[in-house]
Amino acid sequence: MDIQAYMQEVGRKARLASRAMAKAETRAKDAALLAIAAGIELNAKDLLAANARDMEQARADGLEPALLDRLQLTEKTIASMAEGLRQIASLRDPIGEMGDFKFRPSGIQVGKMRVPLGVVGIIYEARPNVTADAAGLCIKSGNATILRGGREAFHCNQAIAQLVKAGLAEAGLPEAAVQIIETPDRAAVGELITMTEFVDVIVPRGGKGLIERISKDARVPVIKHLDGICHVYIDDEADTDKAIRIADNAKTHRYAPCNTMETLLVHANAAQRTLLPLADIYRSKGVELRGCAATRDLLPDAIPATEEDWRTEYLAPILSIRIVADLDMAIDHINTWGSHHTDAIVTENYTKARRFLREVDSSSVMVNASTRFADGFEYGLGAEIGISTDKIHARGPVGLEGLTSEKWIVLGNGEVRA
Amino acid sequence: MDIQAYMQEVGRKARLASRAMAKAETRAKDAALLAIAAGIELNAKDLLAANARDMEQARADGLEPALLDRLQLTEKTIASMAEGLRQIASLRDPIGEMGDFKFRPSGIQVGKMRVPLGVVGIIYEARPNVTADAAGLCIKSGNATILRGGREAFHCNQAIAQLVKAGLAEAGLPEAAVQIIETPDRAAVGELITMTEFVDVIVPRGGKGLIERISKDARVPVIKHLDGICHVYIDDEADTDKAIRIADNAKTHRYAPCNTMETLLVHANAAQRTLLPLADIYRSKGVELRGCAATRDLLPDAIPATEEDWRTEYLAPILSIRIVADLDMAIDHINTWGSHHTDAIVTENYTKARRFLREVDSSSVMVNASTRFADGFEYGLGAEIGISTDKIHARGPVGLEGLTSEKWIVLGNGEVRA
Repeated sequence: MDIQAYMQEVGRKARLASRAMAKAETRAKDAALLAIAAGIELNAKDLLAANARDMEQARADGLEPALLDRLQLTEKTIASMAEGLRQIASLRDPIGEMGDFKFRPSGIQVGKMRVPLGVVGIIYEARPNVTADAAGLCIKSGNATILRGGREAFHCNQAIAQLVKAGLAEAGLPEAAVQIIETPDRAAVGELITMTEFVDVIVPRGGKGLIERISKDARVPVIKHLDGICHVYIDDEADTDKAIRIADNAKTHRYAPCNTMETLLVHANAAQRTLLPLADIYRSKGVELRGCAATRDLLPDAIPATEEDWRTEYLAPILSIRIVADLDMAIDHINTWGSHHTDAIVTENYTKARRFLREVDSSSVMVNASTRFADGFEYGLGAEIGISTDKIHARGPVGLEGLTSEKWIVLGNGEVRA
Repeated sequence: MDIQAYMQEVGRKARLASRAMAKAETRAKDAALLAIAAGIELNAKDLLAANARDMEQARADGLEPALLDRLQLTEKTIASMAEGLRQIASLRDPIGEMGDFKFRPSGIQVGKMRVPLGVVGIIYEARPNVTADAAGLCIKSGNATILRGGREAFHCNQAIAQLVKAGLAEAGLPEAAVQIIETPDRAAVGELITMTEFVDVIVPRGGKGLIERISKDARVPVIKHLDGICHVYIDDEADTDKAIRIADNAKTHRYAPCNTMETLLVHANAAQRTLLPLADIYRSKGVELRGCAATRDLLPDAIPATEEDWRTEYLAPILSIRIVADLDMAIDHINTWGSHHTDAIVTENYTKARRFLREVDSSSVMVNASTRFADGFEYGLGAEIGISTDKIHARGPVGLEGLTSEKWIVLGNGEVRA
């Protein structure tokens, strides 16, 4: 198989399909989503069988238990795939929305229209549910998409692809609007991320290693998420109850998500009243504490923290703690060592809250709320294709709108440039 | 000189300065802009002297007349540099604007704040006026910037840089907010476009060759403009007067700009009444006409057009003409051969106008107006850093807002994730 020729053909078909998708009516896109959801439920047995083949191979290949877990389909995950598609169908269609029309002195009237990006390439690990989810988001946002899932999920992804194609056809939309790459060859990814004539944006979903590799080699723009080194800063004017509740939840609600707190910053004057009770909570939940010298004066059992800790995303029951002299030091720590993801201040002081919001350079900045809220569903986006730690195009949780762009519309009556 | 070490130092300083710029007050930024404008006027003689040195060298090096023309500073261009800075000062400050705050079922309130991108790298040819203009736009939008002008303008750019630094210092802003690369070594550009830790976006301004080279090698995201292959489509339901006025203006107002029409598409039923008078106008203005077979039936003196013409940006008094059977063929021609820049339909038919707006995949789409209006000033942006033919981040004329991003703001009262 000539991978380059194959991918060029996939790209050409996607570009053509993207034109039909861009002008597709809302009801056709929603009909496709509902048909795919129904198809997934109706063919649950076939999906489970295809998944069983993948699981068997993956076990034989010695895949890690955590990865096997993500690869596994169950009746419950199949039901939630279908439910996710129905939710996407219920979202407002952003495409074609127009607004902001203003008359200019020349007589023309200038506004904007929301349009799809065109062709979206999505590269992800062996998680079959992402296949349906990503396809659904791209259909609703009027994009064509080229999906490349982890090789371990190959059979299952192909089975889902058939159901997606059937749903698109049923709704009168081009089957090539969603294509799943049919070869496990890695060279296909290399082609996908460099075909600038056919692909408008790449969204990698997965571990940092995958995303760094893709960003390094891509010629197509990438919407990406690298680290989530999130902070909570407890100010000296923090309400003690709120501080404890938030710092507990931000760390211990779940350890693996990117919006979990990794470093707790505490104003010296708030340390005694907040750190001591928090340390009890953390210890009771088995969280390892690492602290600066001042922290260890207060919590002698904490392990010494180094600069390496300030820049580490543990994704584990480990927390680094630093006692700071003031708000400036907290903001400076966050902007220096953080990953510009999500950071929160706990304070009752209006001016410090306002400064924190303005000066912390992160995609989500919060006052008196847990960093765990940084999420497309919690923000009301309805669905999420990922979280961007980039500043270009989309920042923070990326929903349907992140898969769109705006073009300028000029309405005239024969005006010409003088 | 160790270029890599030098550029790393420039990058580090820019990143640091970007933090101060992000929180700078509107009045400080405006004070800097006004101080730089005054400095430029006050030191006009020194700027002319520095420019004379550059001109002398450029002439000795045999620079083309058109490039010499752009390099040349005059009292008039100096005055308009100062005026441009004053205009930027008068624009609304987009930074820190907040809005769209909505309460969510969890109790948190979610909104957005407009923020600078951070560090903007601008690479341009030997046009000293761009130095002041680009510095001004970055200051107002709260970014730090690293400027790299064409080597031929070296002395003049350094002289402007001194005035910019003085203006920043006078307003209490960091001098490193605007840095001009102090070496003509080309390796500096290679560093600039790959320092992802210090630079957030690259804006190249110049010819297609420069922009293609930069896009190819950049690791930092690029906001770019490649071709301007713009179309006017005269529909069979076009008003004849509007059609002739617009097709004349779009081609002959100026030949070099990117928003000038390069291909005229005419519905077969409108050809007789519009193409014959238009051909007279074009001939009288010395525009060479190239046409499809049907066009040449009507205009026997037109040169045969080939596919190569449909994909060529002439930037010259040359026009290709194609007679099409219907709106679908016009849209298909534009989406296939155009450059997604600016395209206009002339029609009195509501449904065809609406379809054209929706289906033409270009950064500006117009009804009954000249493509020459695609411009930041004409659209009311007040200033323009460039025109983007990309779909990601910014599309079409890019003003201050294109140099910004939005972060999420969450206001809570102690809420945690359940």
